[in-house]
Amino acid sequence: MNKPSIVVLGAGYGGIMTTTKLQKIIGDTEADITLVNKHDYHYQTTWLHENAAGTLHHDRTRIQINDVVDFNKVNFVQDTVQSIDPDNKVVKLEDGELTYDYLVIGLGFESATFGIEGLLDHAYTINNINSARYIRDHIEYNFAQYNMFKEDRQDLLTIVVGGAGFTGVEFVGELVNRIPELCQEYDVDPSKVRLLNVEAGPTALAGFDEELVEYAMNRLEEKGVEFRLNTMLKKCTEDGIVVEKDGEQEEIATKNIIWAAGVRGNSIVEESGFEVSRGRVAVRDDLRTPDYDDVFVVGDCAVFFNEETERPYPPTAQIAMQMADTAAHNLKQLVNGQSDLEGFEPDIKGTVASLGHTDAIGVIFDDKKLYGRSASIMKKVIDNRYLLKLGGVGLLLKKGKLDMYH
Amino acid sequence: MNKPSIVVLGAGYGGIMTTTKLQKIIGDTEADITLVNKHDYHYQTTWLHENAAGTLHHDRTRIQINDVVDFNKVNFVQDTVQSIDPDNKVVKLEDGELTYDYLVIGLGFESATFGIEGLLDHAYTINNINSARYIRDHIEYNFAQYNMFKEDRQDLLTIVVGGAGFTGVEFVGELVNRIPELCQEYDVDPSKVRLLNVEAGPTALAGFDEELVEYAMNRLEEKGVEFRLNTMLKKCTEDGIVVEKDGEQEEIATKNIIWAAGVRGNSIVEESGFEVSRGRVAVRDDLRTPDYDDVFVVGDCAVFFNEETERPYPPTAQIAMQMADTAAHNLKQLVNGQSDLEGFEPDIKGTVASLGHTDAIGVIFDDKKLYGRSASIMKKVIDNRYLLKLGGVGLLLKKGKLDMYH
Repeated sequence: MNKPSIVVLGAGYGGIMTTTKLQKIIGDTEADITLVNKHDYHYQTTWLHENAAGTLHHDRTRIQINDVVDFNKVNFVQDTVQSIDPDNKVVKLEDGELTYDYLVIGLGFESATFGIEGLLDHAYTINNINSARYIRDHIEYNFAQYNMFKEDRQDLLTIVVGGAGFTGVEFVGELVNRIPELCQEYDVDPSKVRLLNVEAGPTALAGFDEELVEYAMNRLEEKGVEFRLNTMLKKCTEDGIVVEKDGEQEEIATKNIIWAAGVRGNSIVEESGFEVSRGRVAVRDDLRTPDYDDVFVVGDCAVFFNEETERPYPPTAQIAMQMADTAAHNLKQLVNGQSDLEGFEPDIKGTVASLGHTDAIGVIFDDKKLYGRSASIMKKVIDNRYLLKLGGVGLLLKKGKLDMYH
Repeated sequence: MNKPSIVVLGAGYGGIMTTTKLQKIIGDTEADITLVNKHDYHYQTTWLHENAAGTLHHDRTRIQINDVVDFNKVNFVQDTVQSIDPDNKVVKLEDGELTYDYLVIGLGFESATFGIEGLLDHAYTINNINSARYIRDHIEYNFAQYNMFKEDRQDLLTIVVGGAGFTGVEFVGELVNRIPELCQEYDVDPSKVRLLNVEAGPTALAGFDEELVEYAMNRLEEKGVEFRLNTMLKKCTEDGIVVEKDGEQEEIATKNIIWAAGVRGNSIVEESGFEVSRGRVAVRDDLRTPDYDDVFVVGDCAVFFNEETERPYPPTAQIAMQMADTAAHNLKQLVNGQSDLEGFEPDIKGTVASLGHTDAIGVIFDDKKLYGRSASIMKKVIDNRYLLKLGGVGLLLKKGKLDMYH
């Protein structure tokens, strides 16, 4: 009668893995579990750049929640979170509200726009299935328009990707595979197409091993990518962008601006009164917020510091999933009246960045460098491992990247 | 040394059939044959509505000119005709000019806009491969946008087809097949989509047998088409259309206006000084213009009157192809110094209007009515017959509609 209720907000990597773990370790008599999500599907954020480029259909990227969550054990509410009132233990939804005893916030990321003029109005961001599909169609539509004009509308065929971090470079890597297909589909001379990757910092893929970064940039440049490093995006307009390098400004006409230069935590968290830095809650070791013993944060809304480097761990799927394990374990302890909670210990197994169908770079086991086909295969292995963990062999066979050589 | 030169302008039904016929019946020593066309491909105008709806890929509709024209026998010039100077026997092209002894004008149609306000700026027309593909992408893009808005943007999902003649109805027929696919691809509730067919006249498919028209309208209405008969399109804006019926005006919000209500001959003909009516030259019996003994007009730039009904024959592919036969025969006579030319005798074998994949209506052999699957099969038989005539068995196998039951 007095079962505590656990509410999980968001079915991204952190939220859905917390939920599937909870449904395994918590019995019907121990607690009620509720999962709230805007859509009836989970999606793999790390694959969205492929959907946006048009190299992978978005249905491959999304997974119906009822394929992996047991609706006999978990109450699923399809609704949009509006705000959280942690003092009264209430979550306001678009169509109602929910009370909780324990809350898990897994509301994901938003694009960080750094106050760049016109960015919100004129740039596209790869945030979710809808926006990824929209970017795919936006680029296709501009290619389709090109032959409708008598004048040479180069701006329709110029694609600018803002940010040469992980997402920016992976997206560019897919686009170099996609552009030849677009040219064929829309009767466009490939030499007319420009693909620019603009990065404010001095290097692409900051944080990666230098040798691998050089490999990646060389490979992408060979395929036509123009990197603009040390270059700030100053302004976006309906007609293009203004960039600045060494104090000199340049206008570039483009109808395709895709912003992939940074993320922050979902602004609902900040607006609900939680203390944040760039939208993220600096969680305690046990992944609870500093002020609330009944609120956990997992994934991109949480920030966790690496004690050795004193820098935060990057907001990756890998970290989100590991956080889910810890949060689920600690929730089990709490609903059973146990007060000893486990501390979160990130275990970075490796990082692989894709450069298109059969190319990638990566570092695994701390220092082993991979590139080319072997890195590409490793990337697919990682993706498939996730599916196996989330939904077993059935899900792996349904959504996995099983053709390792393409 | 003194071989006469024959120049054919345009590789539509009339132009390409004239050319392929000429290359068969005129020897190398008799005349030089030149074909001028904007693209290096011919396309089947009667299939464009399928490309525009997205139910058939445009590569199925186009045929490389060198697949059917023998470039050893015919000089092919890929260029755009600017104007014709029939007094000096010169054709001005974008990149040069050509002189001729005999000219065949097969420059095709343009959309007739009837002076409707805003039509040119805000409506799309199914004119060629580029514009058909653009319409497909325009509709897809609007569906892709729908889920990007918080508000219910019904205008993105409302498709208005102007004109319920042959092209309008055939296009609507394809769209009813396409819309369920679009809804699935873009996560749109099918009940949100509206498909309107606006027609100024009192009936759809004017000129067709009444029983067949009723069948067609019933079938399309069952699939969700809203016919608006006796309804004038008064105005197109960026946000939609204004229609008028019985003196009452109504605004309909839509981002998808496709105009399929009428065609006229290519305006180059009129601008070159030929006497025209709605852009068409009222040709003599032998298909020459009234004023020039060395200029033939075939296809949609020509108008030929039915002596019995005193009405012009409709501008169809069937008529264009038959004209090509007559024009080629008469050219052969002229280059051989013969003055007896053949008169054009249209032979209407039948007319079939498609209502989507497996449905159609038609009349063949003057009075035999067909509908449903048998009419649909007859339509494909007609399409395949054309390919066979144009390019033999090879072309039929390559581009034909060989799956008769879908």
